[in-house]
Amino acid sequence: MINKLAIFGVGLIGGSLALALRKVGYCNTIVGCSRNADHLQRAVDLGVIDSYTLDPKEAVKGADMILLAVPMSATQKVLESFIGSIEDDAVITDAGSAKGSAVEAAKAAFGGRVPINFVPGHPIAGREKSSVEAAIDDLYIDQKVVLTPVDRTDTAAVLRVMKMWQTAGAQVEILDVEQHDNVLASTSHLPHILAFSLVNTLSKSEYGDAVFNYAAGGFKSFSRIASSDPVMWRDICLENKTAILAALDRYQDDLADLRSSISDDNGEELIRVFSNAKETRDRNI
Amino acid sequence: MINKLAIFGVGLIGGSLALALRKVGYCNTIVGCSRNADHLQRAVDLGVIDSYTLDPKEAVKGADMILLAVPMSATQKVLESFIGSIEDDAVITDAGSAKGSAVEAAKAAFGGRVPINFVPGHPIAGREKSSVEAAIDDLYIDQKVVLTPVDRTDTAAVLRVMKMWQTAGAQVEILDVEQHDNVLASTSHLPHILAFSLVNTLSKSEYGDAVFNYAAGGFKSFSRIASSDPVMWRDICLENKTAILAALDRYQDDLADLRSSISDDNGEELIRVFSNAKETRDRNI
Repeated sequence: MINKLAIFGVGLIGGSLALALRKVGYCNTIVGCSRNADHLQRAVDLGVIDSYTLDPKEAVKGADMILLAVPMSATQKVLESFIGSIEDDAVITDAGSAKGSAVEAAKAAFGGRVPINFVPGHPIAGREKSSVEAAIDDLYIDQKVVLTPVDRTDTAAVLRVMKMWQTAGAQVEILDVEQHDNVLASTSHLPHILAFSLVNTLSKSEYGDAVFNYAAGGFKSFSRIASSDPVMWRDICLENKTAILAALDRYQDDLADLRSSISDDNGEELIRVFSNAKETRDRNI
Repeated sequence: MINKLAIFGVGLIGGSLALALRKVGYCNTIVGCSRNADHLQRAVDLGVIDSYTLDPKEAVKGADMILLAVPMSATQKVLESFIGSIEDDAVITDAGSAKGSAVEAAKAAFGGRVPINFVPGHPIAGREKSSVEAAIDDLYIDQKVVLTPVDRTDTAAVLRVMKMWQTAGAQVEILDVEQHDNVLASTSHLPHILAFSLVNTLSKSEYGDAVFNYAAGGFKSFSRIASSDPVMWRDICLENKTAILAALDRYQDDLADLRSSISDDNGEELIRVFSNAKETRDRNI
């Protein structure tokens, strides 16, 4: 049970967690906080949160669980906004897609050391829409949430965050910060970049928008993630830069090899690559 | 109405057309032909075709419509297998994903000139499964079929092929061969290559198959087309090589620019590219 849950940033991610926890009565009260009173009022009207405040210090007063579900570039600032006002037993967690930078932000905010009650987390769930109106109470059911505690992190704090996400229906796993960032760079960040980039290239087609008249189901599903929120994905690119660039380099090398195989009419190599991809996907997805 | 439809290659594409036309009684008889009696017998058992033969000359005897739905690399050979046996009023069409190479194959088979009764065609529809068992009678409903007649092509032949596909529920459009091949290279062939290539890169991950444990819905939809038939996609890469390499070059250039923007922390440019992609997709798909 959580007595008071304070959510910073009540959009799809924070709002969906609030809805899931309210549904089963896991929190006595849920307060939202951001800089936008209209958004927060809408979240109250939609029954996502109980109340809101624009004052971070007020939000964390009495809160035993604090969730940051803000753009990653705001993590440090939000942490700094309530430092000194949090309760002794409060646990802080976040929902950012890159964990190395979340740990760095926490370090910077808390004077060089990650506080023991900060549990870096990443719910691997989402939709193309990111506003509170898109929040649903079953977003996390059977979805993965990865927690990346560091050496100093208090185990009891990790368990409380784990319990919260499990209550929302998620499967919680623990990974190293670095492992998380590398894996997500490959399976999430890189595909988003490739999809954005393809639609961007096609937008410059000599045939104009008419090119999309001949897009079939394959293109539609491939490019679905290119409808994602640009600001969120800018942040992810910058916050997980090192892992993303490494993954992108590997991809570009392999793609250049594939280009050579096409250019050289090397059908055997094309079959090898395509078969390996097909078998790998069919085995794992 | 078609009196006798001869289908060379009774898989997903040929089989689905047969089912759609049988459903509305558009053909008096449909005969299948390939080199595999077991496959053809299965197509008969499934009610996809009325009968089959392994003899191409026998298949086209009395046929007023001939459809090639074979791997593109086989187009010329199949055409040559029944030359001299086709009826005067027969129309020949194909279903290959690249039209320049289909025209070249017809030229080569027919002594240097595309026959006036050959209508190059491309149903833009498909599924990851490609066997006759995957054939369905509604595959083409509201899907595009592009015909790419050349200057010599007989208009009456084009209209008969158009009518056949419309009867199966498709929207038929006419494009130039070159325009078709460029557009499809961008909206279909390139995304397939990118998806195959990404899954291939991930298959070499230091984390092994475990990397896919953290793949969310975005990855699943992005990579769906990497489960497509390797042989078919080898053929497409080789048969539409020029247009694909040009599209791939534009993509690689844009991706390299995007890499620089990430590397240079150029958030403004990332927002510009991602927003342009999102707006373009939301407007067109």
